[in-house]
Amino acid sequence: MENFSEWYHNILETAGIYDLRYPLKGCGVYLPYGFKIRRYAFEAIRDMLDESNHDEALFPMLIPEDLLAKEGEHIKGFEEEVYWVTHGGTTPLDVKLALRPTSETPIYHMMKLWIKVHTDLPIKIYQIVNSFRYETKHTRPLIRLREIMTFKEAHTAHSTSEEAEAQVQTALNIYKTFFDRMGVPTIVSQRPEWDKFPGADYTMAFDTIFPDGKTMQIGTVHNLGQHFAKTFELEFETPEGGKDYAYQTCYGISDRIIASIIALHGDEKGLILPPEVAPHQIIIIPLLFKGKEEIAMNKAKEIYKSLKNTYRVKLDDRDIRPGKKFNDWELKGAPIRIELGPRDIENNKLTIYRRDTGEKFQIDEDNLLNELNTLIDSIENTIKEKAEQKVKSFITILDNHDVNNIKETLSTKKGVVLVPYDENIYTEEFEEEIDASVLGTTEYDGKKYISIAKTY
Amino acid sequence: MENFSEWYHNILETAGIYDLRYPLKGCGVYLPYGFKIRRYAFEAIRDMLDESNHDEALFPMLIPEDLLAKEGEHIKGFEEEVYWVTHGGTTPLDVKLALRPTSETPIYHMMKLWIKVHTDLPIKIYQIVNSFRYETKHTRPLIRLREIMTFKEAHTAHSTSEEAEAQVQTALNIYKTFFDRMGVPTIVSQRPEWDKFPGADYTMAFDTIFPDGKTMQIGTVHNLGQHFAKTFELEFETPEGGKDYAYQTCYGISDRIIASIIALHGDEKGLILPPEVAPHQIIIIPLLFKGKEEIAMNKAKEIYKSLKNTYRVKLDDRDIRPGKKFNDWELKGAPIRIELGPRDIENNKLTIYRRDTGEKFQIDEDNLLNELNTLIDSIENTIKEKAEQKVKSFITILDNHDVNNIKETLSTKKGVVLVPYDENIYTEEFEEEIDASVLGTTEYDGKKYISIAKTY
Repeated sequence: MENFSEWYHNILETAGIYDLRYPLKGCGVYLPYGFKIRRYAFEAIRDMLDESNHDEALFPMLIPEDLLAKEGEHIKGFEEEVYWVTHGGTTPLDVKLALRPTSETPIYHMMKLWIKVHTDLPIKIYQIVNSFRYETKHTRPLIRLREIMTFKEAHTAHSTSEEAEAQVQTALNIYKTFFDRMGVPTIVSQRPEWDKFPGADYTMAFDTIFPDGKTMQIGTVHNLGQHFAKTFELEFETPEGGKDYAYQTCYGISDRIIASIIALHGDEKGLILPPEVAPHQIIIIPLLFKGKEEIAMNKAKEIYKSLKNTYRVKLDDRDIRPGKKFNDWELKGAPIRIELGPRDIENNKLTIYRRDTGEKFQIDEDNLLNELNTLIDSIENTIKEKAEQKVKSFITILDNHDVNNIKETLSTKKGVVLVPYDENIYTEEFEEEIDASVLGTTEYDGKKYISIAKTY
Repeated sequence: MENFSEWYHNILETAGIYDLRYPLKGCGVYLPYGFKIRRYAFEAIRDMLDESNHDEALFPMLIPEDLLAKEGEHIKGFEEEVYWVTHGGTTPLDVKLALRPTSETPIYHMMKLWIKVHTDLPIKIYQIVNSFRYETKHTRPLIRLREIMTFKEAHTAHSTSEEAEAQVQTALNIYKTFFDRMGVPTIVSQRPEWDKFPGADYTMAFDTIFPDGKTMQIGTVHNLGQHFAKTFELEFETPEGGKDYAYQTCYGISDRIIASIIALHGDEKGLILPPEVAPHQIIIIPLLFKGKEEIAMNKAKEIYKSLKNTYRVKLDDRDIRPGKKFNDWELKGAPIRIELGPRDIENNKLTIYRRDTGEKFQIDEDNLLNELNTLIDSIENTIKEKAEQKVKSFITILDNHDVNNIKETLSTKKGVVLVPYDENIYTEEFEEEIDASVLGTTEYDGKKYISIAKTY
């Protein structure tokens, strides 16, 4: 993958993920195949949130100007990139309406109506919605969009600071597990003060490293303390009969997880999809030799039926040559292909092709379900391990934080540079000097570092 | 239900469906319980569309002004109710952006890029998205919103007029089945020329009748002919090597199906939910008599475990009195309640309460799964039949179309009035004279009528 950017744009189109040709910068179309990947990925996070006592809800997309502006720091962080609705039909609106860049303000406005006493807490809700940023930087499909088509944002309110802190840990664990299931390795950092979420006490962030060595933030968890709670008057009666403000957290992931799945696992032949998000986990391709078409097709249908309740399986019965089908599904990253040739069928054998390793081997038909079970596990692990190795190879640990040394390392070796943590140099000026981004403070192999990288 | 409007607003709040208190007219919040109903309802339609070869996709929410205005009739139908984004941050945009009122224009713009030759057709796609109307009429929660939070719109393109016509029938059948599954009876009409979808050849519509006797449109299916195809240049090479424009259809449903489920089935005690969309189909309530708490609670857990893989079941173990729990779940419309008292448990019996009929009866514990199966079916049918009777009681058939007679009937009897079809009177002037809405032409018991009603 010599030119990652070219490969990435190309694969979005050829694999049917996302169509860039919508006539508006930073906005595009999730195509059916890409949409399915999105669906399975976000179903996974939805299940995890539901199981950990989060409730899904849905809040309005339009935010009146005065509501968005209520939290001073927050609006400062967003005001240059908010889209404003000013007219309904030809009528100017009395109050400008923002397209949500994120939903703290609408959600916390509602929370005020729901929180009276400590027994109303905790509240843990989330929504999966579109959101909007008027990006002036170069936009990139599924990475830097003006319409973020998929934003999963969770918001919680608690009666104690300790509980909010514990929720931050819970959220970090949920995201770790989720990224792990997607096979996407991450580096977790506490963002520096000057780069935290506007209105937060502190921000924890997940960065992954793309094949071009640049890092990309794919998830954040914020401890909001009582900043928003005070602004939005989330006051409640404590068990002791006193008053306190709620302690809040919020955390989000976006379409960038889809971009990461594509970017981190793919190869020159196309996508390599983890089985969990693959629209079709298994493709059945009958090899139709003259005079024996029916045997192969019947066997294909039989196998399709035997698998369809267990896996997402597709029988490719298009009237084109098998080689073309092989290429199509390799490009689209289907994890497993089952080939059915007449000789195999006679011998009760099946030929299996494994997309992630390129291996091809025969198995006994009788043993198919067992083999597939093992295979799916093995594919998931292999994909994950390969991605971990790639990301690891992009991490360089320095034993000092000499500016020239860091600059030299960044210019010769792509990826993340870790330097020993030192509070004296951990400043915005340092970041400017090294001409790269400080991701934050990072625990790595039990030690505390400052993590530095060129970022998306 | 003397005052339907009051009942409806009240139930949205008390049952935790939708919070109206967002500080922007026509915009509100789907609360967790309401969101689940929405989720199950739209999962049902999603499954039906997927099974009938539709592909889910996702198109941008923002539509550049020139794109929206491309189809003349279409924009005329919407221009007074489109929200316009004019600024990004403090920067005025070069081109105004509309919040999608519906997605014909963005989708057909993309279709042009996808359609070259007849083998590229048919295309059948759908998306489930938010959409926006600057409503100047009185807004109503989940009925007339400025942010339609859930709009399922399907769009198809075909190579022949016959195929498009057949797709209209397919769509009508899908919707009929869907509304049937939701227990919501409908009247299907072909809308009059003067009330068809802007840009369509003709519009078929599903109306239901609310408890106040007013009709509400809850689904539409449009045959677009080649109007949009010509505007958007959806030209393709025919099998014969000639050129033709695609033949298109589109069809949609919205949050109004949720409003209908609530309105048509509910009673004075609260919601009555069809099992298919009930967040919890079965509520288990242990009756905790002093000294025997453990017996009841253990039995409750045992039954919960035995049911949870088959049904959406909830064990209500809150530390409040059973009567309060009964009321809560009657209000929230849970179809079945299982009560576990110590004497029942001793006798291997369970007490079942059925929300739709209010019946309470005992069953043998050994027979629980069978009983529940039968019960769920019976509940679905009963809910549906009751709603059908209600709607039927709102239909009056006249044997003539005398204007005074129609007005008299409309003023004394709520609901829909059917009068014999006569092309000579089927005009906009007639509609004005009778001071009610002409829903269109309707087949009823094998005869063709003009259907007339007061509408939402």
